[in-house]
Amino acid sequence: MSVGSSPELDELFRPASVAVIGASNRPGKVGTSLFRNLLRSGYHGVAYPVNPSWKSVSGVRCYPDVGSLPEVPELGVVIVPARAVAATLDELGSAGTKGVVVISAGFREVGDAGAALEAEVIARARSHGMSLVGPNCFGVFNTDPAVGLNATFSESLPPAGNIAFVSQSGALGAGILEYAASERIGFSRFVSVGNRAGVDENDLLTALDRDPRTRVILLYVESLAHGREFLEVARDVTEHKPVLVIKSGRTTVGERAAKSHTGSLARSGWDQLYDSVFAQSGVLRVDSLGGLFRLAKIFSSGLALNGPRLAILTNSGGPGIIAADAAVRQGLELPALSESVRAGLAARLPSIAAVANPLDMTADVGADAYRTTLEALLASGEVDGALVISTPTGTMTGETVARAILEAKATNPKPVVVCLFGLTDLSSEASYLEQHGVPTYTFPEEAVEGLGSLARYRAWLTRPRAPVRTFDVDRPKAAAVLAKARAAGQAVLPEYAARGLVEAYGIRCPTARLVRTVEEGVAAAAEIGYPVVLKVASPEISHKTDVGGVAVGLGDADALRAAWERVDRSVRAAAPQARRDGFEIEAQVPGGKEVLIGIQRDPSFGPIVVLALGGIYVEALRDVAFRLAPMRPLSARNMIESLRGAPLLRGVRGEAPSDVAALEEAIERVSQLAVEQPDVAEFDLNPLIVRPSGLGVVAVDARVVLAPPSRSAPSP
Amino acid sequence: MSVGSSPELDELFRPASVAVIGASNRPGKVGTSLFRNLLRSGYHGVAYPVNPSWKSVSGVRCYPDVGSLPEVPELGVVIVPARAVAATLDELGSAGTKGVVVISAGFREVGDAGAALEAEVIARARSHGMSLVGPNCFGVFNTDPAVGLNATFSESLPPAGNIAFVSQSGALGAGILEYAASERIGFSRFVSVGNRAGVDENDLLTALDRDPRTRVILLYVESLAHGREFLEVARDVTEHKPVLVIKSGRTTVGERAAKSHTGSLARSGWDQLYDSVFAQSGVLRVDSLGGLFRLAKIFSSGLALNGPRLAILTNSGGPGIIAADAAVRQGLELPALSESVRAGLAARLPSIAAVANPLDMTADVGADAYRTTLEALLASGEVDGALVISTPTGTMTGETVARAILEAKATNPKPVVVCLFGLTDLSSEASYLEQHGVPTYTFPEEAVEGLGSLARYRAWLTRPRAPVRTFDVDRPKAAAVLAKARAAGQAVLPEYAARGLVEAYGIRCPTARLVRTVEEGVAAAAEIGYPVVLKVASPEISHKTDVGGVAVGLGDADALRAAWERVDRSVRAAAPQARRDGFEIEAQVPGGKEVLIGIQRDPSFGPIVVLALGGIYVEALRDVAFRLAPMRPLSARNMIESLRGAPLLRGVRGEAPSDVAALEEAIERVSQLAVEQPDVAEFDLNPLIVRPSGLGVVAVDARVVLAPPSRSAPSP
Repeated sequence: MSVGSSPELDELFRPASVAVIGASNRPGKVGTSLFRNLLRSGYHGVAYPVNPSWKSVSGVRCYPDVGSLPEVPELGVVIVPARAVAATLDELGSAGTKGVVVISAGFREVGDAGAALEAEVIARARSHGMSLVGPNCFGVFNTDPAVGLNATFSESLPPAGNIAFVSQSGALGAGILEYAASERIGFSRFVSVGNRAGVDENDLLTALDRDPRTRVILLYVESLAHGREFLEVARDVTEHKPVLVIKSGRTTVGERAAKSHTGSLARSGWDQLYDSVFAQSGVLRVDSLGGLFRLAKIFSSGLALNGPRLAILTNSGGPGIIAADAAVRQGLELPALSESVRAGLAARLPSIAAVANPLDMTADVGADAYRTTLEALLASGEVDGALVISTPTGTMTGETVARAILEAKATNPKPVVVCLFGLTDLSSEASYLEQHGVPTYTFPEEAVEGLGSLARYRAWLTRPRAPVRTFDVDRPKAAAVLAKARAAGQAVLPEYAARGLVEAYGIRCPTARLVRTVEEGVAAAAEIGYPVVLKVASPEISHKTDVGGVAVGLGDADALRAAWERVDRSVRAAAPQARRDGFEIEAQVPGGKEVLIGIQRDPSFGPIVVLALGGIYVEALRDVAFRLAPMRPLSARNMIESLRGAPLLRGVRGEAPSDVAALEEAIERVSQLAVEQPDVAEFDLNPLIVRPSGLGVVAVDARVVLAPPSRSAPSP
Repeated sequence: MSVGSSPELDELFRPASVAVIGASNRPGKVGTSLFRNLLRSGYHGVAYPVNPSWKSVSGVRCYPDVGSLPEVPELGVVIVPARAVAATLDELGSAGTKGVVVISAGFREVGDAGAALEAEVIARARSHGMSLVGPNCFGVFNTDPAVGLNATFSESLPPAGNIAFVSQSGALGAGILEYAASERIGFSRFVSVGNRAGVDENDLLTALDRDPRTRVILLYVESLAHGREFLEVARDVTEHKPVLVIKSGRTTVGERAAKSHTGSLARSGWDQLYDSVFAQSGVLRVDSLGGLFRLAKIFSSGLALNGPRLAILTNSGGPGIIAADAAVRQGLELPALSESVRAGLAARLPSIAAVANPLDMTADVGADAYRTTLEALLASGEVDGALVISTPTGTMTGETVARAILEAKATNPKPVVVCLFGLTDLSSEASYLEQHGVPTYTFPEEAVEGLGSLARYRAWLTRPRAPVRTFDVDRPKAAAVLAKARAAGQAVLPEYAARGLVEAYGIRCPTARLVRTVEEGVAAAAEIGYPVVLKVASPEISHKTDVGGVAVGLGDADALRAAWERVDRSVRAAAPQARRDGFEIEAQVPGGKEVLIGIQRDPSFGPIVVLALGGIYVEALRDVAFRLAPMRPLSARNMIESLRGAPLLRGVRGEAPSDVAALEEAIERVSQLAVEQPDVAEFDLNPLIVRPSGLGVVAVDARVVLAPPSRSAPSP
């Protein structure tokens, strides 16, 4: 964020005066549309066009330059050619302007020369302490009637409302505004962040969190400007307001396009990490733009679901079944109603009505049945909310049903969502309901999707809030291990050293001995107890199985001797040059499930913990989860649960369940290691054996890669 | 299907005269709406109201009963109370009426008494050879201007078009008609099948296939009336016309509702089977009603994609990236354009345009750039179709872009789909494009979803059409095995007998010997060669591992003796009452991947082949596929590919790929067994070991359950 701006960013959203540098009268020019929009939006401040070519713009006196303005504009909107932007910012900054929106394109997105211009723009904004939106953006608006600021060049403006939208793509924002205008979706604020040279989505989340007119925040991003900061900020904002995000560039092809578009650096296959960051911060990721608006509608209504129990009330079976299917997919519950509730309902309904959940009143009922039944369902205490489906019949009109629903709703604060099946969102019935705080949808699946998002948001707000646990680890031992490796110039730690680090962080490793001769090995095995595992020990071989460097399940000395010879031959053939320290004899770990826990580091996201089901399934099934460190206990649990193979850990076919609690703790300990040991660039426990419940976990193999010395040198 | 009706069902869709028995003037009555609709729809035949209570209905002379009508109506629409329906059908049938639509409810859906009435109605319709639609249905319509038949009680009628809709839910159909009317989606025909006592979706698929006005067929079903017949009929119809289906009751809760709704019997967890039936018949399953209409739109346009290569042309990066993401999810390709094509395009575009795929012309271009660029892309031969995205800019209007796109499209038959980002479907621009055969969508994801469905349908039409293979199996041996078990009164075959059946069908089993004493076992193992597997042999123990009845990897006689004692003790403890035939000594099968192949039988679907990844993963990951037998080679391949764990069979981390060809053949052989041996009620190869490529498959364990004797007795 630029120096000197307030967290509310009032200089951008509530300026008392705005200068549009590059305002114009030429039809089709951005400067023409933008200044006209500013006048038409009912702006309460003073708008000044600045352009040496015009005496007036849209009938307003035009000034040749910033210096000639009769007052210092609080906000400058800049639409001059890229090469002139830095100088314009200087003029504005010197005068005392607090905020600038740079519409002009031709910066980072067009290559190196543009990037240099952009660096210059950033430097000027910083030096004057101005908040900077853009460059290469579509503008800003605020529908607050006390402000009335439309500093975009959109042809259409949505009505005032409580949805805020932040878009990394200007054109996408333009389309969204047009759509919202035609669908009458009410917006509070809109910002196109463009190249995010100054203000980014993190700053805007903070500002929109403080905006009392904004109830729900929508983001379109192609990348996160500062991933770790996003996690921190969003985790805080979602405590107060739901945040919905479309993150594009999911796929490699999409990423290629994203890269060439605004120059953002998306990493292939990194998409799941975004899922994790959103999960860790309570941000709801949405798959499609249509879905984004359907969900925004329900949050915009202010409804909250206080539990997952849904009643479905309908006058037709088919749509009820479709809704029930969708509810189960969304993780909602359709409780069977109690005998007494059902009896009470049945007494007022036709005998052919199916008094269950979904409750099909049949097409014979009129609007009044909606009122009495809905009222009774909400009052029953057996559901947390209701979906009401109305399909057209000859026995009632949409208007009477809408009125009946509102009457029932007035008796109870529980959320009610309506599917006026067959009627579009723009029908008068739908508008009437929505004006009275009842979200309506054309299709039952869409209504349920909305309710599902309320349930997900509620799960976030009511999550267990255990703090990050800090374990009492052996830091001196960890420091010694790393110092020794550093001194020996080892980028990859030998396994016995890696094991020392793992043990220092309180994760058990199998008993092991480093030996040099086969007879030393036999003696060590006798001490450890058969069966044992034999592994080649070499700092230069990091994937031992790939060179045939491991033999497992050795039951006695003969088997050990035979394996010694076999492994030795195999490693000699596969890695003849590798320096070897000997062999390790390890206790064979008894049965359990294999997982992988690792650490990766990223410039934007910082330390990342990786969890996967072990063995060949990691690669074949791509069943992997990511979380940013440090991790809370709940994150560890969610991380495990997010694996498709999680049922394997719970035990199938009468197997004992695995020690998931120990796995959770191991994940948290690795997370602690990631935070405390920045020298560790890469870290893998692969496999970590998760033993049956109560028996803990054992790290069978550890791989530790140190950061290059230069990078890990202490900063002065 | 009822006796005597034509495959075209003209008596329902094109009757020269219609009698409405139960027509009325009372407001809010179905008989009132229906007869009024019939008059208003511009019906070309003669409509007769029949009701003893009225002298005229809607101004048309009313008759007291069928016998008084001045001519025999070709179609009867029946809206009398349930108990009077059978008699009415008798009157109509005796007079010579060919088709009846029974709107009346109160049949199977209300319980046993209703079911008895329904049986009576079916019997009467059959005896008169009438086509019967319903009971408990919403009616039929045909927008053919030469017919103009609206025999429904819908308030709204969609415009004439080429989409046919068949709905198992009447109310859903009513909602759909209302929606289609307001969205101006053109329909050819509509049928609400209700309880499907006579005409079902299979009859209608055949009839709609023959209707020249119908281009795409939409189905809403909660179950399939005759699953196997559906497969046969749909496989044929999809050769000519796309069939899109919503199958609800996906989930157990949904199924519960489906059951209480129209009395259809949905089986829990059976949903995947429907997926398979749709896959095997080329029917495209859709997830949501919104999706159904978005896909119907593109098929309705008549466009066809002759390959998966898509160009995305846009004037804004963000929507282009979103579309690219969606395209990859849909399995479409975004080929990089050749150097020469790109050079040609770049010459006419602004220098900041990203001439790639997606091709972002930037917001600076006008409508003419759309025309020239699209024309060049289509002419390049490097793509099979194009998605054109237009977001609002100040530089052009929606109308000029629409015209430019149509001009370019006129030069080339390749499909073009448009996303007018920000404009709704009902905008004048969208209507204009759609009238000229260009489907338009509000959001890029929706446009791509449509193109993806074209690609899937094309994949179906161009699939390899190898016929079902019939292998030369040892039928006498199979018959002998089954006869012997039957004679011994064995419902579950002993494993050695089951193995005989498996071998008779040409699937390899490991060498094995049945032995009674440990010394016999040691002798057998010496002959077979170590390592061996020891298994308890008992016709009364079908899951041997559950009782500790299996020991694997026995390397020598000592190990075998120890295992013998251990297994014996364990089985004695777990299944003390089980009659035992001794033990089996089997050759240990060398490494490979475990799968399960099985047979299930279903009254509606007939023999079903089941495939799953083996071991504990079957249950934990629910990674299962179903296909109806007999199976074509392509079905076997698709079945394997549909498993999430399919990559495991292709080999990961340098493993040799598994012998997938042998697995395909084994699936086809099991399919043949399922068809040829109706006495086999259940059949499982679990596990079947798929060895590395070229080494075939081995069935390690087989379980065969015979059908009860009564069921398998030859019919007289």
